[in-house]
Amino acid sequence: MQIVDVAARVRSSVRDIPDFPLPGILFKDITPVLSDVRLLRDVIGAMAAPFATTGITHVVGIESRGFLFGVPIALELGCAFVPARKPGKLPYVTVRESYALEYRADVLEMHSDALSISESGDVAKVLIVDDVLATGGTASAAARLVSQLGGRVVGISVLIELAFLEGRAAVDSQPVHSVVAY
Amino acid sequence: MQIVDVAARVRSSVRDIPDFPLPGILFKDITPVLSDVRLLRDVIGAMAAPFATTGITHVVGIESRGFLFGVPIALELGCAFVPARKPGKLPYVTVRESYALEYRADVLEMHSDALSISESGDVAKVLIVDDVLATGGTASAAARLVSQLGGRVVGISVLIELAFLEGRAAVDSQPVHSVVAY
Repeated sequence: MQIVDVAARVRSSVRDIPDFPLPGILFKDITPVLSDVRLLRDVIGAMAAPFATTGITHVVGIESRGFLFGVPIALELGCAFVPARKPGKLPYVTVRESYALEYRADVLEMHSDALSISESGDVAKVLIVDDVLATGGTASAAARLVSQLGGRVVGISVLIELAFLEGRAAVDSQPVHSVVAY
Repeated sequence: MQIVDVAARVRSSVRDIPDFPLPGILFKDITPVLSDVRLLRDVIGAMAAPFATTGITHVVGIESRGFLFGVPIALELGCAFVPARKPGKLPYVTVRESYALEYRADVLEMHSDALSISESGDVAKVLIVDDVLATGGTASAAARLVSQLGGRVVGISVLIELAFLEGRAAVDSQPVHSVVAY
């Protein structure tokens, strides 16, 4: 009931920008959601809630709009936040994965020690967070980075899912939760 | 007392990376702060607290590490979050300012409607948030963007201040609060 309400408010808040960043792409501008603090609080709650009892140890937020939601979700879940960044941005030793975006190719990096946990023998249980799931290329690269570091992806939480781009197929073994889907 | 404690914990958590991103620069890696959720909670509190009673209406977070702290601070202060982004990233109509960084030049943009507030006649009261205050070039550009849009900068809140780079001089009329200074 509350989730449906949040979804409806997100739909009426998100702004469609035609031909951004390239002709033919209808871009979902999420900045109006960020400027409505009551909606933003409910969005964070809706993105975190499905994973509240899954024992998440690390939220991986994808640069840079994934940072906006990932940190508050980590605070809500009481776990570590780990940034997955564009190449050359992370200062320490990194692992990397390349991926194809909707409209270009890119590389994603994580620090090599990002998923370490103090209790020996435990495996990091990771929630990947981004603003939008489009083709799933970025989320899939983030999932491969988590695997490289010996972690286990528990799920992927996004504000918006562009279902017509079939991103779930690219991350097929991972549970995806989106607040709204187009 | 509690603030001192947070500062000491930040100092022992931040990791020094020599020669990043260029030779001769000692980079402060803040990712260990992000992976310690109790410290991260206290850091957000320490960055927000000095501005809790100043009537902030908008937190402006500077891409991309300013996003990490800016959104939780906006949630804590109960106000809007506005991203200040690298050029070409914001999809709607923007205003822009150029600035000189410690090791390169760049441009910062904000949406032209980012500081609108519903009650007519009111002026947006803005807190600028970033991870590090270095030369102050980025924070100063963000302050000029706020002025362009008719807003008033109430202060600048950063996790780390590199005091030897004299960033406060670049933002001289603005109160700067840092959790730790080097």
